[in-house]
Amino acid sequence: MIIPVKWSDEGVLMLDQRLLPTEEKWLTLKTYNDVAAGIKDMVVRGAPAIGVSAAYGIALGMKNFVGTNMVDFEDELDYMSEVLAKTRPTAVNLFWAIDRMKKTFAKAKEEGKNISEIKQVLIEDAKAIHDEDIESQRLIAKFGGELIENDSTVLTHCNAGALATGGVWGTALGVIRGAVDQGKKVSVIADETRPYLQGARLTAWELNQDDIPVTLITDNMSGHVMKKGRVQAVVVGSDRIAANGDVANKIGTYMVAVLAHRHNIPFYVAAPLSTVDLNCPTGDDIPIEERDRREITHVKDVQLAPEGIGVSNYGFDVTPNELVTAIITEKGVARAPYTESLRKQFEE
Amino acid sequence: MIIPVKWSDEGVLMLDQRLLPTEEKWLTLKTYNDVAAGIKDMVVRGAPAIGVSAAYGIALGMKNFVGTNMVDFEDELDYMSEVLAKTRPTAVNLFWAIDRMKKTFAKAKEEGKNISEIKQVLIEDAKAIHDEDIESQRLIAKFGGELIENDSTVLTHCNAGALATGGVWGTALGVIRGAVDQGKKVSVIADETRPYLQGARLTAWELNQDDIPVTLITDNMSGHVMKKGRVQAVVVGSDRIAANGDVANKIGTYMVAVLAHRHNIPFYVAAPLSTVDLNCPTGDDIPIEERDRREITHVKDVQLAPEGIGVSNYGFDVTPNELVTAIITEKGVARAPYTESLRKQFEE
Repeated sequence: MIIPVKWSDEGVLMLDQRLLPTEEKWLTLKTYNDVAAGIKDMVVRGAPAIGVSAAYGIALGMKNFVGTNMVDFEDELDYMSEVLAKTRPTAVNLFWAIDRMKKTFAKAKEEGKNISEIKQVLIEDAKAIHDEDIESQRLIAKFGGELIENDSTVLTHCNAGALATGGVWGTALGVIRGAVDQGKKVSVIADETRPYLQGARLTAWELNQDDIPVTLITDNMSGHVMKKGRVQAVVVGSDRIAANGDVANKIGTYMVAVLAHRHNIPFYVAAPLSTVDLNCPTGDDIPIEERDRREITHVKDVQLAPEGIGVSNYGFDVTPNELVTAIITEKGVARAPYTESLRKQFEE
Repeated sequence: MIIPVKWSDEGVLMLDQRLLPTEEKWLTLKTYNDVAAGIKDMVVRGAPAIGVSAAYGIALGMKNFVGTNMVDFEDELDYMSEVLAKTRPTAVNLFWAIDRMKKTFAKAKEEGKNISEIKQVLIEDAKAIHDEDIESQRLIAKFGGELIENDSTVLTHCNAGALATGGVWGTALGVIRGAVDQGKKVSVIADETRPYLQGARLTAWELNQDDIPVTLITDNMSGHVMKKGRVQAVVVGSDRIAANGDVANKIGTYMVAVLAHRHNIPFYVAAPLSTVDLNCPTGDDIPIEERDRREITHVKDVQLAPEGIGVSNYGFDVTPNELVTAIITEKGVARAPYTESLRKQFEE
């Protein structure tokens, strides 16, 4: 059972995903700045996992507050919220988790709790966010698993697994685990997902740990394997879903969706409702992170490209809603038109 | 001016493309077995370059023949032809070049030439194949360059450059060089082309040498850059073109073609007529090479994926003719229906 981020009395524990699959090392992060750096440097990644980590980061930062003045305490919360919010721009769960922690603070303060009590409330709420995340995934796995046919091969892109979430199930890999849990025979084709290789390093590792058969391909092979009839469904996670069902996810997702559409293969998106951003009307409103050129030009110390060339390194892309067969959340399976079906899930 | 394979009195000279872009090292191959290994191990790659190399390999092997008996001489030719033909299965230029050398032998023998004379004839014909290849590319550059608009960005996949051919122009990069030669302002987006990284290592290096602006992306970003309007045309090479215009090329080409189609971006294939295989009715008849899993699981000694998983490593894919806007050969620009337009080019 994989849980990539944990609360402890010593600080926030994070499995260093940068070292997988060859090394399993846990870091103990003792300050909120360490947690922010852990998110920014991708010790932990994946929208739900980033959300849980940010909540723990705030709980940790506030626990470490040494003053006695409530105004200072609140200033500190605002300041660390800003620091944490600046780590990654695309995953909306980050902002959602920070916002929820701030609301929890406001409520506790309003209830007349003192600093010591509020510290405890924030720790408990961060743990609750984590528990709720795992429970959401369990439901996503259940609802999504029902969409996967027996004896089928599912293609997935990037890692939307236990490692990308609070743990245990995962979102896209949750759907696969759900299908397996329901007694179905499922195998997986994992895109390696350049440049950060989340598919090769993390998805292949996770599934291998669970004895779910996984075949690794390069990103540019997905069209060919679909053309050969090797893929019966595609399932991916998401970093942010707009109100109209446009889906921001790891770079390359759009390409997989276009190919699935051409081959009449269902394209499913699995994500907790905290990934849906009703304040974003369409995918055009979602900011797309651009990352360092070195992620593409080098693998560790091996230089892959010449000096002096241009490099574009987009972290994410947007898949338009018309290519999305269904969005699976903890509330069930939403289908087009998403503006209505997603809003309805929030109202339930 | 890049010429990746050359004839010399000491043997066949090959620029070791496995070491680019960080090292420029020339190998001197002294036997046809060395040349066969050079093709198989991808010291040289790219369909036209493989054809030229195979021709030089035969010229070298026959030059090294020490007997005096014409029957033995011919047996040796047949044997080394088989060895060279087994190096790579997809590029038809390999078989085309071997076949041409055998015909040249047969003609010289019929004309009553002796072994010493035939050795010289074979060397001259291999050089002629090389010269003709460069001349074909010059014409491809001219015809293809006319299709590229001024102030445009061309996306290319893999390396169909001077390095992939007899040299100087290249096929897909020939089209780009042709457009530049015609005074147009052209920049290039190069897919890195996993797993062998011909785009990152070779295309970026070649264009950088020629001061043509090049921006490197990962393969999974091509859809996103098209969606952003950054691409005005796609040009790729080919390893084999079926009689109906289906195009086998480096894995990932099909994906780029599907995306170009969705975005109404012209998708051009540039290749000498020796790449067109009229004996292959459709792309389904083209054998697709599968290569070693280690190309995907490792970059040099860096392990990217866990042990014990499945890996599929297809070297090529087939793009159906309906996605191909035009095929540019040394005879001109062929358009659909290709069965007619390609046959006509052979008859000219």
